[in-house]
Order: sequence, then C-alpha cells, then structure tokens
Amino acid sequence: MYKDKILQILMNFKQDALSTDETLEALKKLLYEDLGFAKIDHHREMRKGFPEVIFCQGKTPQQVKEIALHMHKNGSNVLGTRSSKHHFEAVKEAIEEADYYEEARIIFIRNTVVNKAKGIIGVVAAGTSDLNVAEEAAVTAELLGNTVKRFYDVGVAGVHRLIDKLDEIRQCSVLIAIAGMEGALPTVLGGLVSSPIIAVPTSVGYGANFHGLSALLAMLNSCACGVSVVNIDNGFGAAYTASLINRIGES
Amino acid sequence: MYKDKILQILMNFKQDALSTDETLEALKKLLYEDLGFAKIDHHREMRKGFPEVIFCQGKTPQQVKEIALHMHKNGSNVLGTRSSKHHFEAVKEAIEEADYYEEARIIFIRNTVVNKAKGIIGVVAAGTSDLNVAEEAAVTAELLGNTVKRFYDVGVAGVHRLIDKLDEIRQCSVLIAIAGMEGALPTVLGGLVSSPIIAVPTSVGYGANFHGLSALLAMLNSCACGVSVVNIDNGFGAAYTASLINRIGES
Amino acid sequence: MYKDKILQILMNFKQDALSTDETLEALKKLLYEDLGFAKIDHHREMRKGFPEVIFCQGKTPQQVKEIALHMHKNGSNVLGTRSSKHHFEAVKEAIEEADYYEEARIIFIRNTVVNKAKGIIGVVAAGTSDLNVAEEAAVTAELLGNTVKRFYDVGVAGVHRLIDKLDEIRQCSVLIAIAGMEGALPTVLGGLVSSPIIAVPTSVGYGANFHGLSALLAMLNSCACGVSVVNIDNGFGAAYTASLINRIGES
Amino acid sequence: MYKDKILQILMNFKQDALSTDETLEALKKLLYEDLGFAKIDHHREMRKGFPEVIFCQGKTPQQVKEIALHMHKNGSNVLGTRSSKHHFEAVKEAIEEADYYEEARIIFIRNTVVNKAKGIIGVVAAGTSDLNVAEEAAVTAELLGNTVKRFYDVGVAGVHRLIDKLDEIRQCSVLIAIAGMEGALPTVLGGLVSSPIIAVPTSVGYGANFHGLSALLAMLNSCACGVSVVNIDNGFGAAYTASLINRIGES
Amino acid sequence: MYKDKILQILMNFKQDALSTDETLEALKKLLYEDLGFAKIDHHREMRKGFPEVIFCQGKTPQQVKEIALHMHKNGSNVLGTRSSKHHFEAVKEAIEEADYYEEARIIFIRNTVVNKAKGIIGVVAAGTSDLNVAEEAAVTAELLGNTVKRFYDVGVAGVHRLIDKLDEIRQCSVLIAIAGMEGALPTVLGGLVSSPIIAVPTSVGYGANFHGLSALLAMLNSCACGVSVVNIDNGFGAAYTASLINRIGES
Amino acid sequence: MYKDKILQILMNFKQDALSTDETLEALKKLLYEDLGFAKIDHHREMRKGFPEVIFCQGKTPQQVKEIALHMHKNGSNVLGTRSSKHHFEAVKEAIEEADYYEEARIIFIRNTVVNKAKGIIGVVAAGTSDLNVAEEAAVTAELLGNTVKRFYDVGVAGVHRLIDKLDEIRQCSVLIAIAGMEGALPTVLGGLVSSPIIAVPTSVGYGANFHGLSALLAMLNSCACGVSVVNIDNGFGAAYTASLINRIGES
Amino acid sequence: MYKDKILQILMNFKQDALSTDETLEALKKLLYEDLGFAKIDHHREMRKGFPEVIFCQGKTPQQVKEIALHMHKNGSNVLGTRSSKHHFEAVKEAIEEADYYEEARIIFIRNTVVNKAKGIIGVVAAGTSDLNVAEEAAVTAELLGNTVKRFYDVGVAGVHRLIDKLDEIRQCSVLIAIAGMEGALPTVLGGLVSSPIIAVPTSVGYGANFHGLSALLAMLNSCACGVSVVNIDNGFGAAYTASLINRIGES
Amino acid sequence: MYKDKILQILMNFKQDALSTDETLEALKKLLYEDLGFAKIDHHREMRKGFPEVIFCQGKTPQQVKEIALHMHKNGSNVLGTRSSKHHFEAVKEAIEEADYYEEARIIFIRNTVVNKAKGIIGVVAAGTSDLNVAEEAAVTAELLGNTVKRFYDVGVAGVHRLIDKLDEIRQCSVLIAIAGMEGALPTVLGGLVSSPIIAVPTSVGYGANFHGLSALLAMLNSCACGVSVVNIDNGFGAAYTASLINRIGES
Repeated sequence: MYKDKILQILMNFKQDALSTDETLEALKKLLYEDLGFAKIDHHREMRKGFPEVIFCQGKTPQQVKEIALHMHKNGSNVLGTRSSKHHFEAVKEAIEEADYYEEARIIFIRNTVVNKAKGIIGVVAAGTSDLNVAEEAAVTAELLGNTVKRFYDVGVAGVHRLIDKLDEIRQCSVLIAIAGMEGALPTVLGGLVSSPIIAVPTSVGYGANFHGLSALLAMLNSCACGVSVVNIDNGFGAAYTASLINRIGES
Repeated sequence: MYKDKILQILMNFKQDALSTDETLEALKKLLYEDLGFAKIDHHREMRKGFPEVIFCQGKTPQQVKEIALHMHKNGSNVLGTRSSKHHFEAVKEAIEEADYYEEARIIFIRNTVVNKAKGIIGVVAAGTSDLNVAEEAAVTAELLGNTVKRFYDVGVAGVHRLIDKLDEIRQCSVLIAIAGMEGALPTVLGGLVSSPIIAVPTSVGYGANFHGLSALLAMLNSCACGVSVVNIDNGFGAAYTASLINRIGES
Repeated sequence: MYKDKILQILMNFKQDALSTDETLEALKKLLYEDLGFAKIDHHREMRKGFPEVIFCQGKTPQQVKEIALHMHKNGSNVLGTRSSKHHFEAVKEAIEEADYYEEARIIFIRNTVVNKAKGIIGVVAAGTSDLNVAEEAAVTAELLGNTVKRFYDVGVAGVHRLIDKLDEIRQCSVLIAIAGMEGALPTVLGGLVSSPIIAVPTSVGYGANFHGLSALLAMLNSCACGVSVVNIDNGFGAAYTASLINRIGES
Repeated sequence: MYKDKILQILMNFKQDALSTDETLEALKKLLYEDLGFAKIDHHREMRKGFPEVIFCQGKTPQQVKEIALHMHKNGSNVLGTRSSKHHFEAVKEAIEEADYYEEARIIFIRNTVVNKAKGIIGVVAAGTSDLNVAEEAAVTAELLGNTVKRFYDVGVAGVHRLIDKLDEIRQCSVLIAIAGMEGALPTVLGGLVSSPIIAVPTSVGYGANFHGLSALLAMLNSCACGVSVVNIDNGFGAAYTASLINRIGES
Repeated sequence: MYKDKILQILMNFKQDALSTDETLEALKKLLYEDLGFAKIDHHREMRKGFPEVIFCQGKTPQQVKEIALHMHKNGSNVLGTRSSKHHFEAVKEAIEEADYYEEARIIFIRNTVVNKAKGIIGVVAAGTSDLNVAEEAAVTAELLGNTVKRFYDVGVAGVHRLIDKLDEIRQCSVLIAIAGMEGALPTVLGGLVSSPIIAVPTSVGYGANFHGLSALLAMLNSCACGVSVVNIDNGFGAAYTASLINRIGES
Repeated sequence: MYKDKILQILMNFKQDALSTDETLEALKKLLYEDLGFAKIDHHREMRKGFPEVIFCQGKTPQQVKEIALHMHKNGSNVLGTRSSKHHFEAVKEAIEEADYYEEARIIFIRNTVVNKAKGIIGVVAAGTSDLNVAEEAAVTAELLGNTVKRFYDVGVAGVHRLIDKLDEIRQCSVLIAIAGMEGALPTVLGGLVSSPIIAVPTSVGYGANFHGLSALLAMLNSCACGVSVVNIDNGFGAAYTASLINRIGES
Repeated sequence: MYKDKILQILMNFKQDALSTDETLEALKKLLYEDLGFAKIDHHREMRKGFPEVIFCQGKTPQQVKEIALHMHKNGSNVLGTRSSKHHFEAVKEAIEEADYYEEARIIFIRNTVVNKAKGIIGVVAAGTSDLNVAEEAAVTAELLGNTVKRFYDVGVAGVHRLIDKLDEIRQCSVLIAIAGMEGALPTVLGGLVSSPIIAVPTSVGYGANFHGLSALLAMLNSCACGVSVVNIDNGFGAAYTASLINRIGES
Repeated sequence: MYKDKILQILMNFKQDALSTDETLEALKKLLYEDLGFAKIDHHREMRKGFPEVIFCQGKTPQQVKEIALHMHKNGSNVLGTRSSKHHFEAVKEAIEEADYYEEARIIFIRNTVVNKAKGIIGVVAAGTSDLNVAEEAAVTAELLGNTVKRFYDVGVAGVHRLIDKLDEIRQCSVLIAIAGMEGALPTVLGGLVSSPIIAVPTSVGYGANFHGLSALLAMLNSCACGVSVVNIDNGFGAAYTASLINRIGES
C-alpha cells in the first residue's frame, strides 16, 4: 500500500518536484506509520465513536467541566462516570447538550453517532442495592452503541426468578453479571447459558464482605466456565469489554 | 433434690453416724454440684454416647494409639478425625474393634450405643473434590446417631442437578452444605429449602482461592437466610453442630 | 395428590368439556407445580408469617418507605433492619401501625401472627458495646415467634458472671453468642452447655481488631463443639437461623 | 414447535391410541422441556464438541483414569488439565488414543470433531516462566476449535519486543495476556489493540508477589479498557472464555 | 586532624594554661566527636540547606505554625508537607516569607540557599489523578536544589506518549515514576532508560486497588532492573532519595 | 567515680609518668565508658548467666555446632532453640556436656550458674498440641534461673479444669499463657488472676486459623487487662520476658 | 484456715446453736469461697484502688455520665479512656471532682488512694504524633500509683537522642515503648536496657502503614529479647500491664 | 547528526548510485533509529558489560544450561541468580569458565570486562541468617564493576556494633541495608548517614513475620529519609539499582 507512496515521493524528489526538506518530512511521516504508531491511531479510529472518558469521583465539578469542554471541542463523545449531580450541573452550564443518567451516575455529551452492534448485551443484577453499578454498565453499553436488556433482582437466593428469565437471557450474545455479598450469580448463570459472562463484584455488603472482597474472590474462583472478572463496582469497564466482544465478527 | 441429702448428712453427723471428716467431704461434694460444676458433668451426661474426639493430623500414630487406648479404657466411644491409614494401623494393633472409614479419614471405636435421632441430616456437596470433607461430615453424623442422606456432585454451576434432588433434600431437618472455590452452594440451597444450613467451606481450589478464603467469605456473606458457617474443611464440626440441632425437641 | 387432577383434566378433554387450549394451559400449570417450583412456593408457605426483610442501611428513608408500603400491601409482615430513626419516621408517616425498636434499630409492621415456637432462644452478649447487635438478634427472634431470654454483660474476662447464669442459660434450646474483640464467649459457653450455638462476631474494638476480623477468626477456630458462625454484626441472620432451629421437630 | 407434539399426544389419548399413563408420561416429558431444563440440555448441545474437563491436580492417576474412561465411553471429548506424566500414563494404559501435551500439562482424548472458529485467538505471554500457563491456554484454545497464535517473551520491560509483533497481534479477534510479577502486560497491550483481552495473572515470582496476588491486583486495576481477568494460573479458563467470545456472531 | 588538638590541650594543661576542669571539659568535647556523634552532626552539615520537615496532615494549623516558627528561628529552611490552605494561612500569619505550593500541598520558608545539583531529576506521572503526589515530589526536589523536569500524563495504557518523551527523559540522571491503579509505569520506563528509578505507588483507584496496595505490590515485583520503591503517596520521600542520588559524585 | 581516674591520668601525664600516647589512649577508654557504651557492657553483665542463644531452625547441624563451640569457648551458657535431634547430635559430638530437651526442642550447654529468682513462673497451656511451644517456654524459663510450674491441658472449652488449678496458678508471679485456634485462654485467665500474663499464640489449627493469625489477633484484642503478646509460637521470647519480669525488685 | 470455721459451724449445729437452715447457709458460703469464686473477689481486692474503666469512644456523653455515676457511687476510682471534651463535660456536670487530662484523653474520678509502687515506669515515645497514646499510657500509669518518667521524641532515626537519655531510662524497672510507622523503637531500646519492655504500636502513618499494621508486625518480630506487645494505640493496656509488673515482689 | 546521512542517501538515489529498493531500505533503517528504538539499543550499549541475567529458581539445571549457553555465545556476561549447585554443575559441564559463588547462590560467566565505578557500595546486614541475600547483593555489585564493602551482623538490637563501623560505612556512596524480622536496620542507618539506602527485607523469621511482610512494611514506613525498598529477598535487584546509582556523574 504505502510502498507506492514512497516511490512516488522519491520520484518527485528525483524530479525536483519536492525539495530535500519536503522529501525528508514526507518520508518520515510515511515510515512512522509503518513502525506501529500509525496503527495506534488506526486502532483509535477503529473504536471510532467510542467516547473519551472522565472518571469524575475525586475531581471537583470545575475540573470535570474543563476536561469535558476540552474533549467536547475535539468533537469526541464524552462520557463522565461516577459523576454527582454537582458535576453534571457544572458541565451542563457550559455544554447545553450534556445529558445526565442519575442512577448510572453518568454524564454524556454526544457529538458523533456510534453505529449499532447486532448482538444484545444482557445486564443481570442480583439485588436492588447493586442498581447503581448495574445502571452504570447498562447505560455505558447503550452509549457505546449496543442494544441492552436489563434483568434485575434475579439473585441466586431465589434461583427460580433467574430461571423464569432464562429464555430472554439466552438471546444475549454477551452477559454482564453483577452481584455483591457472596457473588454467586455469575456461577449459577454460567451453568445455564453459553454466552461469555463479564462478572462485576460490587462493594454491597458489610462485615466479612470487606468492601467487595468476598464477591471478587468468589467470582475469580467460579466453577463455571466462561466467566471473567473486572474490578469491584466497575460497571463501566464491564460494559466497555462487553461492547468490544459484542462487535466481534462485525468489522 | 439435694437439699434432703444435705439434711441427711447433717443429721448423720449430729447422730455421730458420720465423723467430722466424713461430714466435711460429703458436704463439699454435694455443694460442689450446686455450684455449677455438677451441671458441667450433667451436661456431659446429656451428650452421652457422643464420642471423645482425637484430631489425629500432626500427631504420630504412636501418640494417637495411646490417647485412643486411654479413652477406650474409660468406656467412651472414640472418634479419630483426619487420621491416615498409619494412624489407624497403630490403633487397630492395640484395639481390635477399631473401624476405619477411609474417605472420611475417620477411626471409630464403639463402646456404647448412641440412641437414634428422629430427623434426617442431609449432606450436600458441590464437587467430587470435596468428597473427603463431605464424608467426614456424613460419617461423623452417622456415628453420632443420625440418619444421613448424601447428595453429592450437585454444584451450582449445574443448578438443575440440585433441583432434581429437591424433594429428597427437603425431607431433611438439617442440611450440611459443602463447597470450595466460589462457595455458592449454601446460598442457592438456602433459597430452596426451609431447614437450617451449616455451611462448610473447603480448601479445594487454587490461586485466588487462598486455601479456602474465597468460599469462607462467600458463605459468611450469603444473601440467603438460615445459613451459618464453620471453619474451612471442618466437616466434623458441621456434623457435630447438625447433630445437636437434629435432637432439639427430643429430650 | 395432583395425579387425580391431571386425570380429571384429560377426561374433561376427552369429553370435550375442555378445549384443546384450555387443556394445554391447565396441564402446564399443574405440571409446573410438579417440577419443583411449586415446592418453592410451598416452602415459602412453610415459613408463613416470617416477615419480608428490608436492609435499610444505605437506602434513603424514601426508598425504605416505598419498599415497606409495597410489602405491607401484600399482607406480609415487614421487618426493616439497620434502620435509623429517619427511616422509621418516613415509614410511620405512611403506615400507622409500624413499630420501632430503637436499640435493635428495627422497624416492624405486623400483618399476620406467627405461631409461637416451644423452645427458648437465649441471647448471650459479652459487653455493653455489643448491645445493638444483641438487641437486633433478640428482637428479630421475638418477632419471628420465639420466646427470648437475654443474658447481657457476661463477657469471659469475668467468667463467674457467666457461671452465675448457667442454670437459666441451660434451659434454652438454642443460643446466640455475641462478642467483639477476642470473641471468646462462644468457646467458653460451648464448654458449659449442650445446645447449638450461633456465634456473632461484632465489629466492636479498634486496632488489630480490624473491624471484627479478630472475633470472626476466633469464632471460626473455636475449640468447642457445636458452634457455627454468621457474618460480623449479623444479629438478624443469627436470629433467623436460631428460629429455624428452634422449630425443628415442631411441624 | 412442541405445541404440535402435545396436540398429537392429546389426540392420541382422545382416540385411545395412548393409555392414560402413557399420556401422562409423554406430556410430562414434553412440558419439562418447555420449562427451561430442556434449554439446559440444548445449551449443552450448543457447546457441542466442547470437551468434558478433569482438573487432575490433587487426584491420583487411578482416579483420573476412571473419570476419563467414564467420559470417553459417553463419547465426549475429554480434556485433563494440570495433569502430570503419571496421570497421563495411567490414562494411556486404558485409552490408546489419549494424547499428552507436556508443557501445557494437558491430556486430550478426541471422540468428536469441533468445528473451527473463524477468528484467531492470540496468546501473549510475558516471560519464559509463564510458559506452562501460556501453553495450557494455547493448547486448550486449539482443542476447542480455534486457530491460535503464540506471542511469547514479549514482557513489558522491553516494550519494543511487543511493538515488533503488533501487526500480527492486531489480527487476532481475542487476546489472552499472561503475566506474573507486576502483571503489566494486559495494560500495555490494551493501549495498543482493539480486541478484548482476557488477562491471566500467574503465580510466577517471589516475596511480595504473594503467589500471584501482585499480578492479580494489577490486572483488576488496569487503566486500559477492554481487560477482564480470570483466576491466577487459570490458562484453561481464559482459553474457554476466549473460545466463547471467538464464536460470537457465528452460530 | 583532631589529635593535634588533643595534644594542644594536654600541653596547655601541663603548662597550667588550662585548669583541671577546663582540661576535662575540652577533652570530653573532642573525644565525643571521635566517637561517632560528631559525625552525626557533620552528617547533618553535609545535608546543609536541606530543610527540616513537618508532616502537617493530622496536625492543627496552630500546631504547624508553632513548629514552623521554632524551626524558622533556628535559621533552618522549613518544608511542610501535606499541608492544607488552613495550615498555610496560620503559618503565613506568623512568618511573612512563607510560600505555598497548592497542588503540591507544600509550605516552604527559605532561610538559606541550597547549592544546585548538576543532574536533572525527572518526575514521570501516569495519570492526572496522580498530580498531587507528582507535584509533591517535583516541588520537594526543586526546593532541595535540583533541576526538575516534569513528564505528566504518560501512562502505559498509551505507551506511545511515553516513547514520544523518551529523548528528554533519558537526559535525567534520576527518575521518579508515579502511578496508581496497576502501577505499571516504572516497569515500562525501566525497560527504556538506564537511570535509577524511584517508584511511587499512589492510592488513586477504587475496589481491588485497596488504597494503593495494587500499585505497591506491582512496583515491588517489577520485572525491570533499577527500580526501588517508597511508601504509597510518598512523593516527598521519593524526592528526598532522588536528591541524595543526584548529588553522588559531587561532594 | 571515674572523674578521679581521669584526674589521676592527667596528673601522671603532668608528672611524665605517662607518655602522650599512653595518656591519650587511657583517656579515650575512660571517656568511652562515660558515653553510654560502657553501660551497654554493664547491662550485659546485669543479665550475667543468661545464655547466648542460637535459633537452630534453618541452620545445618554443622553450622549450629560451630556457633555453639565458639560461644562455649567464651564461657557462655549456650541455648539452642528449635533444634532437631540432628542439631543436637552434631553439637554433642563436639561438646560432651550438651543436654537435649526433646519436647522443648532445646539444646543447652551450661558453663556458669544463673542465680535463682524468688518468684514462680507459671506456664499455662490450652491443648496437648501446644506442648512443644509450652515446653520451649518452660525449659527456657528454668534454664534462665526460674522456678516453673506447668499447667497443661486447661483449655477454655472446659473452664472448670482451669478453675480447679486456680489456687496454684495464683501463686505464680508471672504467667505465660499458650493457646492456638481461638486463643481465648489469656483472656479467661486474665479475669481470674492478678499477675501479668505473657500470651503466646500458637500456629496449632487449620483453615481460618491462617497459621496462628486467629490466636494472635484474639490475644491482641483481649478484653482482659494485664495481657501482652509475643510472636506466634515464640515460647522462648515469652520465657525471656517473664524472666526479666520475675526478677524485678530483686537486684 | 477455713477448715476450723467449718468445724465451728458443724459443732454449733450439733449443739443446736445454729438451725438447720442457718447451718446450710453458713456452709454454702464458706465452701463457695473454697471453690475459687471467693478468690475472684479476693483477687479484685488485691488490685484494690485500681479504677474501674470506661472505654468512652463510641459512647454518647450521656451514656458515659451514667456509667461513671454508677461506678462513682460504688466508691470506685473511675477512669474513662478515649474520652472527648464532650464526654468530660457531661461527667463534670454530674460529678464535681472529675478531672480531665486532655492530651491523654482521660477522665479520672478519685475516691480512694492507690498506694505508690517503688519502681519507676518509663514511657518512651518515638514521635510527636504518638503523643496522645504516650500520654494515655503515662497518665494511666500515674493514676494506678506509679512514678512515671516520660522520654518523648527519641525516635530511632536519630539514635543519639535515645543514647543521650540512656542513664535515666535504665533507672526504670519497666518500660513502655511507643512507636508508629516502622515501629523500631522497642527493638533498639531492647538492645540497650535490661528491663522488660511493653511495646505499643500506634496507627500513626499512612499508605503501607495500614493503620498500624506495619508497627504491630515489626514489634511482634522484634529481634530484641524482653519485648511483648499490646494492641495498636492501646496506651491504657500497656500501662495497666506495666503497673502489674512494677508491683511484683512488693505484696 | 543523521540528517546528513539521509541527505547522502537521497543524493545517491538521485544520482542512481542506489536503486529504489536500496534507498528504501537505507531510509527505513535510519528513520527507525530516529524513532526511539535505536535509543533502546544505545541504552543497552550504555549498560555495556552489564550481564544478562537468569533467575534459576524453578528452572531445571538443563534449562539453565541451555539459556546460559545461548547468552554465552552472544558474548554476554552471564549472571545466574538463585542457582543451586546442581544448576552450576550443569552449566560448568558446558562452559568451562563458569564460576560459582556458593553463599550468594550465583553463577557467573565472564566474557567482557565491566569498567570499575569510583564509589563504594556498602552492604550492611542485620543477622547471620540474612547472609544469602547479603552475599547475593554483594557479589552482584562486584560483578557489575563496583568496589563493595561488607558490614555483616550489625543488627539494631545491638546498636553499638553499628556505631563502631560508622566511619567505614560513611565512606560508601550507596548503601544496601538488609534485614528480616522487624526490619529496623535501614531506619537506624538512615539517621546516621547521608548516602541513599536501598533496603532489602528478607523472609527470615517465623509467625507474624508472614514470610517477610513485617520487614517489608517496616521499611516502606521508615521514618528516616533517603530509604527506598526492593522486593523481599531481592539482593540482586538492590545491587543492580545501587550500581546504577554508583555510576551517576561518571559517564
């Protein structure tokens, strides 16, 4: 592909259509692409439409606003996670088109459309206390261009609730399974479906829960096949991974 | 009850049927019983037929033999847990009637009969790797005078296997649920039955299992009601507790 | 039982008393019951009168009120644990008959009467600092239909206080032993009684207590037989388990 | 689909072609399928050709042989992980066609052919010490019907080695990234590719590595998007998950 | 050196130029220096100009002011770390020449000039969230008399950003590498440069980050050579160590 | 005291009874003593008769023999802890008078007599499995010149056994309390006696014992006053500390 | 001793000087004393003057006031630890003679005089940040009747400061060594003195300090002999233990 | 520098001294160097003479031999760490000039001479048990071209031993401080010297040492300035870092 372009440059140089400096510059740019870095940009291109992300927690509303403005001006979609209402209000002031998903604690500013993936991502959550993390996952997945189905309150201490939803759950190509406490949901789910499962431990619980450690360890030790795990409460990360998986075979 | 006995002693003393020293001794013995310690013995009596227990692991066959002989001579039933074949052979040499339960790693010497409890104890185990712990629990429960039903290989990654056995499982008055790795079995079980469940985490697994920590934490954080937990791999302790529970309302 | 009903349906179908569609529907419903799920409902029935439970901590008063209202309308008894006064006030506004147990941090709304169990549940607590957890256990056990006796301030650093109460403690069929710090109470108790003991570690302490870890580990490693353990500060869970145990041999 | 079959049965019953008992049995079987369990079997079917798995570590060669024979007779493909040579020799004695992959520590017995997935799974490993885990992943993925490319010794302490392979790595649809010690490989990789990455921490290291904990935590906290994690040393689990992902959009 | 001085004293004594008491005192002082303690003071001298340090966090503004005043009166440079604006305001009230570096959270009062080291200290930081720690390191290093270059936002999830800065980074004689989450920066950096690297894990992150543990363990297990580690968030300590290293070969 | 000696030296110098060099040397030596280091030696003297100690575990028999020989030649008593029979045999070969205490795993070589302390040290141990640690403590205390009383097998799960021995236990001036598993012994003991208690957690147990962590944390969190703790299995350290305490008020 | 008293009773009974009931009561009381419980009271007596203690932290001012009032009315000395000013104000309102030690966070109400111990307790503290814990120890020791010497700011990073104080430190019969961070003080001290040392780790520090864990572990692993350890920040416990030790050989 | 070379190439191309293909190849090579990778090689060059390293532990003698042979043939110096005698014998068989440092557990094969650094590296070790790690550090530093001074057995429990060596220790430009157990050595050392200190925690100890964790945490929390830390037992890493530091200001 680019070999022809180089030849073209060299010929232009030979024929004095390009000065020495211009030749040098043109060559450097082309070869740079050959050495992997162009691919980095290409790789970015591939994820085109995927938003730039701000982790708002621990930042002031002012800081979030400024970062968001900067990204917005670049024409990127902007996704702010773990954002409070105060974060949103600061952003909204500066960028009219900013949206806020309260339960998901997400700010979103759309500048470009992400094309829709074919498969469905299912977000399966154990308890009502896991709602924030579940919504963070579900809304993120939607904003990344996926069709999302929510299956909430299907915790394993009442396994019939899960079985009741099995038909629908099996239509999803990827599943995100969210649970705190004993974190058994991905394991039970893994025995009933054949899709890959991204497990999200939550910090819901107390005592020997140790801020999500119990669910995290349980998920890492799942005796079901097809389960992989992300950080405690990382609904965003699960959705991002699920989105990549959901697009496999599409490009 | 014993007040009459004291009066009897005092009268005997007054009438010189007892010497001063004899009176003193007799009084001390009786009053001792009044102060709680007699109750300790009574409490032992209540658990009559329950064996004395040797934790063999970390003891030499010779040591186990000697302790067993000593208990055997007292007329106690003797139960040796975590015993290897070598332990058993040393004991067998000295005590002809000793029995060995290989998978349960239990030595038993019967000297007195434990009367049979009415209820059934169900031992439910997730994987074949948990077999040793499961058998330790099941055999212990049997030797403590219970009818035991075993439900093995009903791990939650194939929840239909558990549901298939539900009818029988529900006939048990107490359940012992044994699982390693993600330790989800007691939680799923707890949503399907109304008996109390003693959960036993096992050290089966590797990596982030941390020698049974994952299953232990999962069980302590169970979102199902009616679950309590014993130490990692403690099949004996679960069976002992289940036996006490199984006899409630009997005495 | 239900076989006759199926025959009835088939006969009605044969005699055209039922259309094909009606027959199909009727069969499906009946067989569904046969496949375990009916048992799930039956199992619920068995625990009839046992309340539905809201874990209030981390929820807003508004959220708690709405969940409580929903359950209340279903005719369930409603039990709210870890509830603050604010939670209660919100609920009280909507449901006149709601009661509040301040030390136990429990909201209760009675819609149906639980029949009384025969045995007594003893709640034994080490220090005054464990009072909240102890009351959560005691009040829960009472609301689940048990007679409860409280034995507070009988910590093991003054073992004679425990021995003074031994007579009464031994009349209980199940014991809940609550302790923070070094968590030795269930072990000492286990050597003096013959009832099963549910041990509750509390997060009372500081430093190397690590939020209840010291008591939790101590209880799991108890050298006394008959002790099983629930999560740190989980007075509710201990009471629920004790209630199930206390009804064994009654049904 | 199955509604016609039910009608058929009912008609046969109406016309006395089926006895009452035969009708009952036939209906039960059909409806059973309707209630989710058939789907469990179907779901198995979907993963057809995927082998049944034996975790050999901690089992005797004799035990492994027996389990393998049983599975083999069912016509399943059989995959034994963490198997030593001794395990293999015992199996080979009984089943002529058993193969052994020494570095991967895998026994395989083929009874049925898995159809080939279209995408490529890339196995990227940091150090030569991670070889066993890497081969466990690579061989498993191959046996599950995937084309596998191996990229070994591309640890991040020499990041140019990774960049040299970037072209080829980017052709894979899923990546398995294996690293011990500081576990940075999946993060660096995640910044260079757009495929989902299954990260496998290994127990390679010493001291503050704490048997793989350092790599595990690093991977769970990866600042790169698209990374999910399996248990320490779990090459098999990563390959299984990657295989599910690699088939998305194929069925 | 000092032997001559002793002889001088002894001679003065012999010639009655010194009384017995004066001789004694003079000797003691001199010999004291010989026994190591003088060296302690000398050693202090060697670090001359290096400030005395106050760790402000957990102290009241009033306390910080008083300690600062005391040091200031001794003529020392004073460096207050982890200081809030309130700390600074209290100090400023009392000491006019106090300066405040807000992002670094550092108060500085200059009383004496530190001579400039020849080499450059490079401060390399992964994410914008690590800014406080990075600035603490950078400002400390500057105040200790070093030329500092900042390389911020060069996290390893975009390794090309790091490579873009490589020329400049390689001109530094010591590097401070700051990262939270998976803490991979020092490892990647270590493969690209030949300077010693002081790694600073930060507590930036959530969940399985466990307040900086993930980054700490990753850095201690770095597979790159030349990396040593300081406490979580200890930007000051890293800068102090780097300053000592940067002056090697200068004295 | 030593001031006179200095004057003496100075006078000798003035009168030429000492050369300059001799004067210098003599002064340095005397002043050295004044500066604390002499006290270090004096402090050693104070513990005169206390043996030099070899921690044998992890050393070869040959290494232990050589260290022992060296100490023996200096005229020290020599105490080897955690020594196997092999260690002893190697030492015995070279030093005829070496003794071996098998259960305590202690080698002792006496070269000088330690004078007897007045008080009694009581060694109280919970289980027979703690015997090695208990004997290490008891034998060490004896070899350090104390009268020792052993109270073994008085674990808290049978608190009456402890109370039976209370009279004798109260005659001890210091107590060493040794327990594994739940580590409750020092707490119960602390409520019954008024002597200081050195608590020794042992690594006896399994599962959630985590190699002695459960007992260690329990002892550090003891709700009894007067309890301090040494390292897991550190019978020697407890005995050494108890010996220092036992001699208070004697010198 | 008490045998004569029993004989006296029996003789009085024989001679009808005592009724049967009076005899019974008198005997029971005497024998009770024989069985250990009297000794519990005697043991309390032995510690006469030692205060009753309230751990104020986590209690409301109102609760502390009530407990204090109750103890005060019993004539006990009352010691409140971890008390805020608010606690003190509430107590002061009710009990005029209450004193407050602000840095020690101690409330004290004196009702009886503790006789003075002969030895000195030295409180040695590493940093100014450890002041609260140090004062808690020092004030407690004083209130328990000891002469206390304070040696503050003698941290090991400037070991000459410690050596400067050595003379005075060596005059103490027991030492309390308080340090946070790396917790090295007791070890260095242990090499310089021959008194027993109670080590108190403090939670002073950040990051890998893990709330005092680093100092705790360091102290438990001290390579110096004669060191035992209490809980993190437990200045009170150290002082109580030191007081018991300081009185050895006095009674 | 290289711009001239490019012009040269372009001119050669213009004048047909180079074919199109030759031109392309020549340009690519030059530009490659411009893009950072050449610098990687240069950076390698800079560390010229530094050996390639094999971590032998966990590898078979055969594997180590093969890797060593491969490196040896490349003309590299080869350094094998954590090597047993068996490793060495296998290597020696194939490479005559291989040397073995037994206590350091190091194999070395010299192919090129490292030029000598000016400064001295001091290796300071606490106990004789730390000898292996100390020698690993010392021998590595020597083989990397440094003058090394060893200061062994200067543990802080006898601080005068350390002070006795202070003169010599202060002549070193970098220090490696090695200690197990409570890990206090680097802190005490840090208060006495002005060189940077690389601290190496060792796994020497037992119980609450947790395989080196106690020393590691202590060193990370050192209250002395100028201390940075490497992994537990990582003598090699400390020496490598110290070597880089020791050469600062030399190039």
